[in-house]
Amino acid sequence: MNRKDLKLYLVTDRGLAGDRAIEEIVRESVEGGATMVQLREKDIDTREFIGLALRLKNLLEPYGVPLIINDRVDVALAAGADGVHIGQSDMPYSMARRLLGPDRIIGLSVENFEQIEEANALDVDYIGVSPVFATPTKTDTSEPFGLEGLRKAVRMSVHPTVAIGGMNERTAADVMACGTDGIAVVSAIVCASDPRQATRNLLKIMTL
Amino acid sequence: MNRKDLKLYLVTDRGLAGDRAIEEIVRESVEGGATMVQLREKDIDTREFIGLALRLKNLLEPYGVPLIINDRVDVALAAGADGVHIGQSDMPYSMARRLLGPDRIIGLSVENFEQIEEANALDVDYIGVSPVFATPTKTDTSEPFGLEGLRKAVRMSVHPTVAIGGMNERTAADVMACGTDGIAVVSAIVCASDPRQATRNLLKIMTL
Repeated sequence: MNRKDLKLYLVTDRGLAGDRAIEEIVRESVEGGATMVQLREKDIDTREFIGLALRLKNLLEPYGVPLIINDRVDVALAAGADGVHIGQSDMPYSMARRLLGPDRIIGLSVENFEQIEEANALDVDYIGVSPVFATPTKTDTSEPFGLEGLRKAVRMSVHPTVAIGGMNERTAADVMACGTDGIAVVSAIVCASDPRQATRNLLKIMTL
Repeated sequence: MNRKDLKLYLVTDRGLAGDRAIEEIVRESVEGGATMVQLREKDIDTREFIGLALRLKNLLEPYGVPLIINDRVDVALAAGADGVHIGQSDMPYSMARRLLGPDRIIGLSVENFEQIEEANALDVDYIGVSPVFATPTKTDTSEPFGLEGLRKAVRMSVHPTVAIGGMNERTAADVMACGTDGIAVVSAIVCASDPRQATRNLLKIMTL
């Protein structure tokens, strides 16, 4: 994985997409400059999950944008996705690496500094620092890192980092100033009336 | 897989187990003669699911009783389970076979005769004829096969069959008389005050 792929990392959420197909939101966001896409689905049949992953993989392939599957190693393998993103209550990293092989991307969510130290001992491809800010789209999270915590996390981590939780046009510039490689965005793109423009706006703010 | 392994196939359901650990129920049932065990969990973190699967695999190994994981190919691979049981909305069979390799057990639920014909064209290890009777433990099922339908299903199938749905002391003898290789039991064992004795009683009725 290229470290630059983390820059604007779209995380899908069908619950927030309303009537719009997730494929359309993903396509528009990628055309607006999103660099990586994570498919996150919790209440979905495995077959439907795989079908959606296959459609997104086909959609993203021509753009050279990696598709990452949240949690489900089986879905990633079945759909030929580029990797998985695992949290602390998902499959343990060593098992996921064994099943996915050395080449696929594995990202790991860390919720505190102890978990960053643990991740430093693993050959994960990146860590997701989660959450930076409190956010309504992830309700089961730990105490937010805040900007101060994020700066410390970036310094501590031997791996590339992506900031998760509360990423939007108001926070993106401050977050990037902490030295993180990128931001993982859910609602600021999925809920936007124009996901392409929302992505462009975020990227503009991030590179100011 | 030995066709005889299907004879008394315990399917776990933590929701029905109440305060008792699923491991204890499984151990007692296997000591009472259960021939195969399926771990079925829907609302559980992946890490917890794998942990439970590993504990059951260790528990079952000395008894030579295969452990089957419902739906989740990733959990089966991570825990070194003996196979998976997939339904019509789980991973498509061909993908599951590719990920699991030729030696692991794959069972497939069929809900009508058309699906039995489809299964006949696949090298599945067994089919679960589901449901034979209406049952409160699976509420998302199709029209029950009934005994007449089960007889027809057994005749049609080129694979070993196990009858699912409404299997208990009242139905077991009639079900076995339809020629099926075994019965998949949930509540008649999981809810029993003495799972060992409940398993023994079922086996006695089945061999009368």
